[in-house]
This record gives sequence, C-alpha cells and structure tokens, in this order.
Amino acid sequence: MLTALEKAGILVEALPYIKKFYGKTVVIKYGGHAMINSELKQAVMTDLVLMKFVGINPVVVHGGGPEITGMLKRLGIESQFVSGLRVTDSPTMEVVEMVLGKLNKEIVALINRLGGRGVGLSGKDANLIIANKKLGSGQQDIGFVGEVAQINPQLVETVIKEGYIPVVSPVGSGPAGESYNINADTVAGAMATALQADKLIILTDVEGILEDRNDKNSLLSTIKVEEIPSLIERGVIQGGMIPKVECCINAIKGGVATTHILDGRVPHSILLEVFTDKGIGTMVVK
Amino acid sequence: MLTALEKAGILVEALPYIKKFYGKTVVIKYGGHAMINSELKQAVMTDLVLMKFVGINPVVVHGGGPEITGMLKRLGIESQFVSGLRVTDSPTMEVVEMVLGKLNKEIVALINRLGGRGVGLSGKDANLIIANKKLGSGQQDIGFVGEVAQINPQLVETVIKEGYIPVVSPVGSGPAGESYNINADTVAGAMATALQADKLIILTDVEGILEDRNDKNSLLSTIKVEEIPSLIERGVIQGGMIPKVECCINAIKGGVATTHILDGRVPHSILLEVFTDKGIGTMVVK
Amino acid sequence: MLTALEKAGILVEALPYIKKFYGKTVVIKYGGHAMINSELKQAVMTDLVLMKFVGINPVVVHGGGPEITGMLKRLGIESQFVSGLRVTDSPTMEVVEMVLGKLNKEIVALINRLGGRGVGLSGKDANLIIANKKLGSGQQDIGFVGEVAQINPQLVETVIKEGYIPVVSPVGSGPAGESYNINADTVAGAMATALQADKLIILTDVEGILEDRNDKNSLLSTIKVEEIPSLIERGVIQGGMIPKVECCINAIKGGVATTHILDGRVPHSILLEVFTDKGIGTMVVK
Amino acid sequence: MLTALEKAGILVEALPYIKKFYGKTVVIKYGGHAMINSELKQAVMTDLVLMKFVGINPVVVHGGGPEITGMLKRLGIESQFVSGLRVTDSPTMEVVEMVLGKLNKEIVALINRLGGRGVGLSGKDANLIIANKKLGSGQQDIGFVGEVAQINPQLVETVIKEGYIPVVSPVGSGPAGESYNINADTVAGAMATALQADKLIILTDVEGILEDRNDKNSLLSTIKVEEIPSLIERGVIQGGMIPKVECCINAIKGGVATTHILDGRVPHSILLEVFTDKGIGTMVVK
Amino acid sequence: MLTALEKAGILVEALPYIKKFYGKTVVIKYGGHAMINSELKQAVMTDLVLMKFVGINPVVVHGGGPEITGMLKRLGIESQFVSGLRVTDSPTMEVVEMVLGKLNKEIVALINRLGGRGVGLSGKDANLIIANKKLGSGQQDIGFVGEVAQINPQLVETVIKEGYIPVVSPVGSGPAGESYNINADTVAGAMATALQADKLIILTDVEGILEDRNDKNSLLSTIKVEEIPSLIERGVIQGGMIPKVECCINAIKGGVATTHILDGRVPHSILLEVFTDKGIGTMVVK
Amino acid sequence: MLTALEKAGILVEALPYIKKFYGKTVVIKYGGHAMINSELKQAVMTDLVLMKFVGINPVVVHGGGPEITGMLKRLGIESQFVSGLRVTDSPTMEVVEMVLGKLNKEIVALINRLGGRGVGLSGKDANLIIANKKLGSGQQDIGFVGEVAQINPQLVETVIKEGYIPVVSPVGSGPAGESYNINADTVAGAMATALQADKLIILTDVEGILEDRNDKNSLLSTIKVEEIPSLIERGVIQGGMIPKVECCINAIKGGVATTHILDGRVPHSILLEVFTDKGIGTMVVK
Repeated sequence: MLTALEKAGILVEALPYIKKFYGKTVVIKYGGHAMINSELKQAVMTDLVLMKFVGINPVVVHGGGPEITGMLKRLGIESQFVSGLRVTDSPTMEVVEMVLGKLNKEIVALINRLGGRGVGLSGKDANLIIANKKLGSGQQDIGFVGEVAQINPQLVETVIKEGYIPVVSPVGSGPAGESYNINADTVAGAMATALQADKLIILTDVEGILEDRNDKNSLLSTIKVEEIPSLIERGVIQGGMIPKVECCINAIKGGVATTHILDGRVPHSILLEVFTDKGIGTMVVK
Repeated sequence: MLTALEKAGILVEALPYIKKFYGKTVVIKYGGHAMINSELKQAVMTDLVLMKFVGINPVVVHGGGPEITGMLKRLGIESQFVSGLRVTDSPTMEVVEMVLGKLNKEIVALINRLGGRGVGLSGKDANLIIANKKLGSGQQDIGFVGEVAQINPQLVETVIKEGYIPVVSPVGSGPAGESYNINADTVAGAMATALQADKLIILTDVEGILEDRNDKNSLLSTIKVEEIPSLIERGVIQGGMIPKVECCINAIKGGVATTHILDGRVPHSILLEVFTDKGIGTMVVK
Repeated sequence: MLTALEKAGILVEALPYIKKFYGKTVVIKYGGHAMINSELKQAVMTDLVLMKFVGINPVVVHGGGPEITGMLKRLGIESQFVSGLRVTDSPTMEVVEMVLGKLNKEIVALINRLGGRGVGLSGKDANLIIANKKLGSGQQDIGFVGEVAQINPQLVETVIKEGYIPVVSPVGSGPAGESYNINADTVAGAMATALQADKLIILTDVEGILEDRNDKNSLLSTIKVEEIPSLIERGVIQGGMIPKVECCINAIKGGVATTHILDGRVPHSILLEVFTDKGIGTMVVK
Repeated sequence: MLTALEKAGILVEALPYIKKFYGKTVVIKYGGHAMINSELKQAVMTDLVLMKFVGINPVVVHGGGPEITGMLKRLGIESQFVSGLRVTDSPTMEVVEMVLGKLNKEIVALINRLGGRGVGLSGKDANLIIANKKLGSGQQDIGFVGEVAQINPQLVETVIKEGYIPVVSPVGSGPAGESYNINADTVAGAMATALQADKLIILTDVEGILEDRNDKNSLLSTIKVEEIPSLIERGVIQGGMIPKVECCINAIKGGVATTHILDGRVPHSILLEVFTDKGIGTMVVK
Repeated sequence: MLTALEKAGILVEALPYIKKFYGKTVVIKYGGHAMINSELKQAVMTDLVLMKFVGINPVVVHGGGPEITGMLKRLGIESQFVSGLRVTDSPTMEVVEMVLGKLNKEIVALINRLGGRGVGLSGKDANLIIANKKLGSGQQDIGFVGEVAQINPQLVETVIKEGYIPVVSPVGSGPAGESYNINADTVAGAMATALQADKLIILTDVEGILEDRNDKNSLLSTIKVEEIPSLIERGVIQGGMIPKVECCINAIKGGVATTHILDGRVPHSILLEVFTDKGIGTMVVK
Repeated sequence: MLTALEKAGILVEALPYIKKFYGKTVVIKYGGHAMINSELKQAVMTDLVLMKFVGINPVVVHGGGPEITGMLKRLGIESQFVSGLRVTDSPTMEVVEMVLGKLNKEIVALINRLGGRGVGLSGKDANLIIANKKLGSGQQDIGFVGEVAQINPQLVETVIKEGYIPVVSPVGSGPAGESYNINADTVAGAMATALQADKLIILTDVEGILEDRNDKNSLLSTIKVEEIPSLIERGVIQGGMIPKVECCINAIKGGVATTHILDGRVPHSILLEVFTDKGIGTMVVK
C-alpha cells in the first residue's frame, strides 16, 4: 500500500501536465471496448471529470457500434451492402439515431454520477454538424451516410464555457433537416479542428501502431505526418487504422497540436496520456 | 386575398401582445395530434420560432405517445399492467428513452429548418430533471416511472440566454443515474415553475374545458383555481383532463402567471393565444 | 372580417423578414405628408415601435417643413432669397431650431404613447453632427445653412443599445458651437452611413420614381446606382428627387445595403416595406 | 501674479473635496442671472465640465425665464392671469416648449465647446418626467401647468454612466403625451431625489438667506430643516424663497445629503461651493 | 516503483477532494521549520501551486521568526523585554519590516519558479490590514506591536480573481500610516474570516494536539470548539498552542468551515490534508 | 492671501490639462532629494494622489540610494569595486532588497495617508520584471546587477484598473528566481514602454539640462531625440545625465509620447509639469 507521501508525490508529478493543458480543449473519440466494459466506461468518464476539474476542457464524440447492429437485428431490419458498405436507408437511420441517442444520455448520466456535469448533444442541435451525403466508393447511393460539411461550434463552446462536458453523437443535419450517420472518428477530427483543440485522442482496441504487428514491443510512440505515406506503403498502417490516421492528419493540418491513437482497453489510458510522461499508444504530430 | 394594408393591420394588432410578453418565458407541453400531423407540426414550430424572434422565450416539453407503443410492439416487448398502469421495466424504459430521443431531435431539426436554433435536451443533461420513483396507486412497484423531485434549470436558462429554443424530453435522472419516464404534462408544469415562466401552455386534442361536453359552444374560456374542485365534482373536468388541470394549479401556485389548455388540432393555436385577443381553449388563472 | 387563422397567417408570413432584419439598423427620414396628417403620424410611429420590439433598430431623422415657414411668418421675420435659396440669418436659425425642437419632442411623445421609448436628440447633443457652412450655388453666403462635416454616432449607438428609439433633428454644430440647419435627407443618409445601417428609408409625398410621371403604374421598383445618370438625363429623375437619390447613392457607397424612396402617404408604408414582399416605392441598390 | 507654487497649492487644496465627491451626483438648478450674462454662463459651464473630469457627475435642470415672455410678446400671445398665475393655454405651452428647447441646446453647445459632452433632454424623452396637471390656488384650471408625478431616471443614469453631462428642460409628459410646464426648482429637487444625488444646488440671484435682508453680512450659511418653519414665520424666508426652500426640504427628506441656495451672480460659485471650504450662499441640511 | 495504473489511481482518488474545494479559499499560516528547510519550502509551495491549478485559492500569511532575531543581532540592536515580551521600538520595527519584506519576495519567487504566479503584499498595501496598538499584559507600552483592527480584503480578492497567489506579511498599518508587527497566526485567522475562507491551515512544528504529549499516537485528529476549554484546563492544550487554537476558534466563529493545526515538518502536509482522507494534524471544527 | 475667485481661476486653468491626460498613464521615476526631504516626499505623493483622482494613472518606480549604503555600513558589509562599479554579491543583494522593500512600503503608506490607495510591488511579483545578468564594462562579473530582459505588465495593469497606484521597486527576477538589482531609471523607462505610458517623468536633483551649466537661466526646456548626440558631444549632456537621457530616448522609441527630466527639489514639480503650462525641467521628445 502507498504511503501518504508517495500519494503526494504522484499528485505533484502531475502538476507540470496540469499547467501545460490548463484551459486547453481535448477532443476524445470514445468507442470500442472502452464503451462496452463497465469498468473501462467508468475509468474513461472519471478521467474526463478529473480533467474538467483541473481546468482542461474535454469534449466527447462517441460511436454506437454493436448496439446498432443488435437493435437492427431485433427489429428485423436487414441491411443491404454495396461494395462492403451498409446502405443506411430511412428505417436504418432511424434506428441509428435512436441507439446513438440512448448511448449519448447513458454517457451523460455516468459523467453526472461521477460529479461532472455532462450535456448530450447531437449534430442536429443548433445545426452543430452540417452534413453532406456521402456516396459509396463506386459513387452509388448508400443512403443516409454523411460526411462533415461544416461544424458550427458555438453551442459546444457555450456549453464548455458554462462548465459542462459536451458529449456529441455523430449525427449530422442535412439541407432539409434530415439525419445523416457520420463516422465518429471523422466527426471527432472535424470537431477538434473547429474548436482549435490542443489534442485529439482516438480510443481504439489496439496498442497503437506497431512496427511489427506480431511484436507488442514494437510500438511506434511518435510518428510524424510526413512519415505516414511510407508507413502505409510498407503496410505498417493498414486496414481500419488508415482512416483513423487520416483523421489525425486532417486535425493536425487544421491546427490541432497533437493527435493520439490510444489503447482504450487500458484503464485510465486518457489520464495517463494527459497527466504522465508514460508513453501510451501512438502520437501523430506535425 | 388580403390587401397590403390589411396585412399591416394584423401586424400592428399584434404589437400590444409582443410588448406584453417581451422577455418572458413560455413553456409549451407539446403532444397529441399536433405532434403527429405534419402540417400541425410545422405550424407549432413556426409559432415558436416567431415567438423567439419577437423576444419571447419558448421552452418545449414533448411527449412520445403512440411511437413508443409502436416500437415496443415491433420489438415484441410485452407490457404488464398493474391497476391499469403500464409497468415500465428496464427494456421498456430503454425503448421509451430511445423513442423520446429520436422525437426530440426531430423537433429540433424542424425548428432549425424554420430558421430558429433548437437544442434538444433530456432531463439527464446536467441533471436537469432529478426524478423519484413513483409507485402505482396501490403502492406497487411499476418500474421506472418517476415523478419530478427537483428541476435544475441552469442549463435551460443558459440555452435560452444564448438565443436557442430548448426542447426537453421528459426523462428524469434517478439517484444512481438511472432513467425514469415522467409524465410530460407534469414536467412542463414543474419546468414552468422552476423557470418562473409567464405562461404554461398544454396542447391537447380537445377544444378545452366544455361546460357541456356535447356542446362545443359551451367552452369555458377562463376558470379560476378556486372553481376547479366543484367543476371536478360536477364532472365538467374529468378523466385525463384532471391531471392536466392539476399541473396548471401547481404551476400557478408556483408563480406562473397564466396556464392554458389549448386545442392543438387548430393550426397556430399557440400563436393565436399569445398574439391575439381571440379566446382559444381554456385559461386557468389564479 | 379576418378569421383567427388568417391573422395567424399574416404573422407567420412576416417571420422571414423579422429574421432577415433582426439586430439591424434602419434609418428613416421622416417628413412631408406623413408628418402632418395625424393618422399617418400614428401609423409611422406604430411601425417604428413594432420594429423595435421585434429586434430591429429604427433611427428617425425628421424635417420641419411648413411649421418653420409658419412661425417665421408669425414672427414677422422676412426671408431674403439668393438664387432661390432662403438666406438663414441668425434670427431665422433661432426659429428653425425652436420649431425643430418642438417637433422632435412631439415625435418622441407619440412613440412613448404607443409603448416605445423615444429619445429626442439634435446634432448638437454630444456633437452628434458636426457641420460646415454651406455656400449658395454662386458661392454666396447664405447664413447658417450647413452640410455634414462629421457624424459622431456614439450617443445614438448608446441610445439604441439601451433600447430607445433615437429621434434626430437635423441641426448641426459648427466650430464655435453655433447651429446650422442641414437638409434632413442629407443627415439621414450620413447617419445611415455612420451607423452602418442596413436600410435607409426616405419618406416622400410621391409614389416613388415613375418611368412615366403620368402613369402611376410605371413605378420603377428597383433601380441600380449605375442606371441613375441616364435616368436623370432622360428626365425620369428630376427636380427635388435628384438630391434624394443622391443621398441614396452616397449611403450605398458608404456601406448601407439598400435605400428606399417610399410613399409616405400610404399608411404603414414602412412596415409593408420591411415586413412584406409587397413592392412599395422605389428601392435604390448597388 | 501667482507663482507656480501658489498655483500648485490651490490644486492641492482642492484634493480633499475631489475625494469627497468622487463618483457622486450633483443636480444643479440653472437659472436667473447666471443664464443671461455670457461670462457667468461660461463660468457655470466650465465648473460643470471640470466637475465631470474630476469624477463628479453634474446634472443640469434649467429654467427659461425672460426668453419665454419675450417670445410670447413677439408672437402677440396674451396671457390670462388667475390669482396672479399665468394660464398656460395650448399656444402658450407650445412657445414654452420651443424656447426651453432652444435654450437647452444652447447650454449643450456651450458645454461641448468647453470640452465636455452635453446631452440635452426634456422630460418627454423616454418619459423621464411624468407630470400631473396642477390647479391654481383656488383649484381653477390654469392650463398646462404641471407638477412632477414620477421621475424615470434610467435615461439620465445611462447618459451619466456613458460620460455625458445631462441637461434637462422642465417639461413633463402627461397621460396622453401632452406637455406640461413644471417649475424648474421643483424638477431639480425631484431629479436629485430620483438620482439619489449627493447635492442639490439652486442658483439664485440673491446672496442666500439673510438674517437681516438689509445686511449682506448677515448670511445664514447653514440652516437645518427643523429651523425653517420659524424662519418663515419670522419672515427671514419669504416670497419666492419659500418654494425654493421647500424643494430643498423635499430633496433632503428624499435622501439627498445637502442642498444649497447659491448666488449665481458670483462667477464660479458652484466650483467654490464644491471645491473649497469657502462658505458661499446658504446650505440647507438635515 | 509505481505502475502507470497505480499513478492513475492516486489521481482519481484525489478527485472527490478537488470537487469539494473547487473555487474555495484556503488561508495558510506559513512558518516554523517549513519556512527554513529548503526541501520543505519547495514542498509547501508546490502544494499551493497545485491547489491553484485545480481551482482552489490559497492565500499565504507568513511569519519571520529566526531571521528577524539574526538581523537584529547583526545590527547590534538590543531588545528590551517587558514581562517576557520584546518591546518593538522604532529601529526594531524597521528591521522587522525589512526582513519580512525580503522573506515575502523569496516566497513569491519560489512560487513563480514552480509555475505559479505569486504576488507579495504587506498589510500596508491598500490598507489591507489596519492595526491598533497592542499593550503588554500589564498594559505597558511595548512599542509597535499591533493587533488587527480591520481587514480590507478587496486587494487580496482582486489578486485571487486575476489568478495570482497572494502572499501576505503580517505588518499592519496604524492610524498615521506607521507600521505594526502583528502575530502571523492572528493575521491568518482574521484574513480567513475576512475572505470567508473555507479552511484555515496553521503550519506548526508539532504533530498536532496530543492527548498525551509523550505519546505521538495519541493525536486528537478532530476537536470541537466546545471541547477546548476543558482541554486547556486539563493541560492538553497549553503554552504556545493556546493562541493558535484561539485563532482557530475566532475563525470558526467568523464563518470559516474548518481550521487545522498541521505538522509543517511533514513534506506535503497541506496537500495530504486537502487531497486525501489521511488524517494529518488536528482539525478544529464547530 | 488668495481670493475665492483667484482660487477658482487656478482650478479652471488646470482643466485643459486634466482633459488632455484623462485616462493616460504617467510613469514617475522617484528618487534623489525628493525621496529624502519629508516635505518634498509629501508634495510628490500628493501630486500622484491628485492625478489619480482626476483620472490620470500614475505609476511610481523608486530607487533606494543612500539608505542602502547606510545599511551595508551598519552591517559591516564591505563592497568591492570593479572599474568603479560596486560588485553586488549575495549578502549585498539581500540588503538591497530589504531596504528597497522597506522604502517601497513607506511610499505606499504615505499615499494611503493622503487618501490614495497604493500597492507596493517588486519586479519579482508575478514576474513583473524579468532580469538578465549585466556585466561590468570590461565584461567582469559584478554579481547581482541586472538589466531588464522583459516586463510582464499585466499585474500593474490590473492594479491600475482597480483604482490603485502601483509603486514598484527595481528588483528583477532572474532565470532561477534569484534577485537582481536594476537601475531605477532603466526600470522606469522600460515600464513606461511596456505600459505604453503617455509620459515618463524622471525626478532628479538638477534643474534639467542646462546649455551652460553655470547659468541656471540657460535651461533647455525641450530637446529632440535627434539633437541629443551633438549635445553629448558638446558636453552639454554629460556624466550621470547621459544614462537618464538614454532612458528617455528608449522610452520615446518604444512609443511613450513625452519624457521629462524634472527638478525633484521643487515642491509639486510633477503637478506643475502635468497641470500647468509652466515649463519645468527639460522635456525630451521625438
């Protein structure tokens, strides 16, 4: 067990990091395992509440993942696929929005229970996220799948300034007010840019980017934007990691100082990233 | 067709009402037919946007009604009933919250499309509505049915002050962050009291309170709180109208100036109530 | 008689215009018939009060017209004329200022009676209008006739921001604090520029600019600045209309979005111009 | 001629008075000789500008005096008298308002020329002074003679806060917006009360209150409210001085700290009263 | 060595305390060993900087102790003693003030070096501490020894609000601006009351109040104000601890929530007291 | 003795100067005779308090002079000299800081006694003055003698805005928080630049710059920056006056409007400079 003095030491050790990020905004893409396991959930939300209290402004963008699929199945809604992409027709979109809405308020409730003050928003609130229709890779219509056309960050800024933690579900608003489902990583990146955040953190279910995917000790703790093309070419970055890294690149180009791909399966990985010098996951920088 | 001058006349006629309610807050319980028919929907939201632009602050509390039942049916969730009340178990509550969340954002999107700026909230956001568990009439456990324990109106006040129209779904937050379904009329009344609103408007699917329910010309346009017991005794107020009237009474006792039971089936009934001297529905006053 | 629903319709129809001009400033040159006929007076002031309540900021600049001549006559002050211009000697200027001051407060009182809050100012208050001496067309001295050297709009801006309707009489302050009489159209145009108003409205006693002055159906509802020279050359714009149109041109060049020459003999012409799509008078635009 | 050091000494001597009145409001009734003689005019206005610059807030209420009579004569308007009071019919009131308006702006112009920023107001602006009709001593109708029913000081307070010197003419606004002529001393007293001024200064054409009216050395430099009845009884206070003293009494009862009857014929009497310990005129205190 | 997760755990454990004291003011009497040993110095100042960053407002009141005696000796100033109290004559007071001033800026410099922003003040700045002369126990004149007559906390409040850590030396200002040396515990207590602090912490060189002074395990971790008289009677509280406890009593009576007598020899004792549930020293409460 | 009217005249004469400097900042280097003679002390501080009350913001930077030497002697600290410069070792610096601190609070106390509100600061407070080590003319180490590396004026700006008079001692903070003694003229000049002051006043013990040092009537009342090199060459400016003039040049280049070398032996020389047209000392301008 730790002595009182050791405890004090840890708090003192956090001071330089608290100073460094004081008054800064950090956008967190919340998803994957960290959104399913109840202990991890609590750990993530505790980290956010702690950040808020020490003067840092966290903004959560969450995904929906398995719950959407589960609900579609329960409702007997079958999905069509075009070149591997699920076509989001109107009934599907309705389910997407309902499930995201429910998850959104669950996150808010957990933040509140831990002593923070969460406010759940979707991209439709005050036209926070204006969406364009996105076409499939072969230019097919894949329904209500959108991409970010514009972020109107005033509502989120107000909510931050008033001391709340904004929690945003990745639903965008189309020209006629219709809903679009947008990839949550993309929304997090665009939000970080619009808010001129200091940090973008993407929680994933992997250790970060491994030089050799079979060797967990080969983690690349920092990569520069300019190194990324060759890493993709060499297959070090591949598959689902490619769009995540692209979100990082866009955010950095948009003025975000650092971006991080963290292992959401490690409890308090956000806190460790922000408050200690312990390298967790992969940082993508200019 | 109206002449330009006649048009001008109408606008001028509205002036005294605009003056009267300038800077005031009006809470609207939105539900029933006005939430189903798409022309009525648009009329209601137009009225709210107009109010906002002329300096009045509308706050919407909406119900969920038939959509919840429909979704429960689609998901094959059967409801138990205890003394005629549906028991809201956990799977049911999940559906309630999802459907309300979806409806909430639909209302927001419609407000935005009409040029207003809506923000959708549930009672869980920033602990806006703290709920207590409500028991059935025989003190049975009827699940996640709640009553209002406390309103924390700061978030709604911030949202109003920043120029948005708040749209609130009637879900309350229990001691452990669990969700409770609360009657929307009750929430609207409590919200009006907490915000010290000038007016509470409950949209219904009837003309108002009729002296003789078979005679639509027997509308009681104004009733006083003190007259209500005898009206209930005589059966003039009965059934589902009783709890609505009780919400009005509570709001008035809590400091709300006037309360109204309006016919939501009449297009622009809110606007007519607020901006003209045309008696619509029944007003309950001190 | 109009039904309630028709009334609602008119209000709803005004919504896009309320949105469009929300928070904008509109400078109105008030004079002519609309300042003599008591019903028209009331209609104009009602329009201004209504504008103020729905979030638009009207600023009135008024003339003095026939009352000045009347008072000069009553006082037996004879006017000299130089090339058709009245020489404003010191006793004349004193009468001008007295009559304008009286009219100014009458306008204010009418605004107040209609529920607005008017504040009457002259160009001498806080050096609102700094004047230069203006010479006759042959460079003769014509006394205390001035032109606008500078507008110091801070006082008017304060008055607007605090919720009042400023009413300005067209008296300027010379280098030694002496008073100058300035053409009210000119003051209105300069004021619109100084306040970066969205609209300048000049009330006249004609329908607007007619293509054929004998045909009231030949109204030019919109003319561009670039078209004006040829319209003057062709005699479509002539006489007293030329300086009015020049005020419009100057205001537009100074950053005012649109300028209007309206028929002040039509009741509520301002309201119709601002809140409906009904073309009234002639709009001069870039 | 004074040495530099002597000059410095005078400024230093003023310091305690500057401290004492810092941020306080002083209402000055301006009239009589000080409003006619051009050197005295300039001296009074210099005093006010100086006060403003050293952090004191002067408010001027002026009379009209001989100019009104002159203008009535020029216009051939004959006045009826009832028990010695001039009946102010509608044409007379019009002249009163015009002359007061002209004088008001002259004062403003002089303040501006001396480097201050004056703003001229009448009691009709923003309903600053609400008037009741006053009857003659025999309850006869004497026309548009009013008394103060209510002061709405917000406009004056705004004008003060923004750094201007308000100059108020004693015209009140009746229930239908009609003008009433009110005694300027009375308005000054009511204004001092409404603004919770620290000082009320009434400029007169006498030395103050003399114990023996034939002995200028018998000035009563301070009198208490409680002593006044016996001073009136003994004839020490008599004639036109009685209503002035009553204004002082009312102001003191309304919360004004000190009131002063000063000799306006002495140049810079206000400045001497405020910034030196030299007793000028008579101070009426609690 | 601690794992990353253990580190995270400590930070998370601090969260409830951060929440509890967010926005609160804590006055620390700094003196004794903690002001001499350079590691302890750094630990104390680190604790204060950390508190400031997590939203708590520390205010330091420091003593001078041995350095004053040293400097008096170096200057050959001999002290007279009256009933055991050092008489503070004018040359002595000068030395007191010089030494306190030097220590004050040393503390400020250390805070600044650790990333905080310290501002050093004495009680003479803006008349922060108004002092009365204090007499010896036999009513003898003991020179410039003072007691607190009044605290004018506005300057400290401004400094706090602007994000600085105020550091106050216990010199008071007498009626003629002369300096008085005041006991630092007393000043800390009066400051805590004037600022309506949440906590008063007095750093001492003992463990706290021990039930049995020979048994370090007999620490009284909490005592109530009402228990103190009997503790004094029983000799549990005695000697120099009595005035310290009296400061606590006065602060509590003045509205300070809790007061603490901490062992300043334990590194980070302030941090442990504020951020952990580890009982350090003795808490005196209502 | 002066008549009341003459007194009034002086006050009125000051008005244009009060207007001219209203809201401006004036930095005063306070030292020499004016800091020793008690009448001069009081005169200087009275001038500053008066300036503050009439809306000008004085900032004092003071030296220490003879008192430091006296204290070093009393403590038996001998000074080494390198090329005529005193080497400031650590014990010497400690004395410098103590004496400056004591003088600083004496000035503050005097300001307070005269009705102002002084706040004493050193360059270490909130890192107000960041210092670099300065080497001797032969690049030798002369200890803790510093030069200004950076001014962080926020604390002084806050103190000014809140109505206090800041009094700054010329101690700078080195990279590790160590103290540096800096020339007070230099600090005053740098402070004037950092605050974008309107005026820098350096109090000296001479009349100003004399064309012929033996003729007190040969005062150069204004010199331009461009004339200075030739004045130095001709020996008109020499010795200790050269660095003072260089401070003026730097301040002017940094944006300060005028700089003044005043005779601090003349009572109220600051007041005369600021409030009269009497030429006192030498003004250095662009």
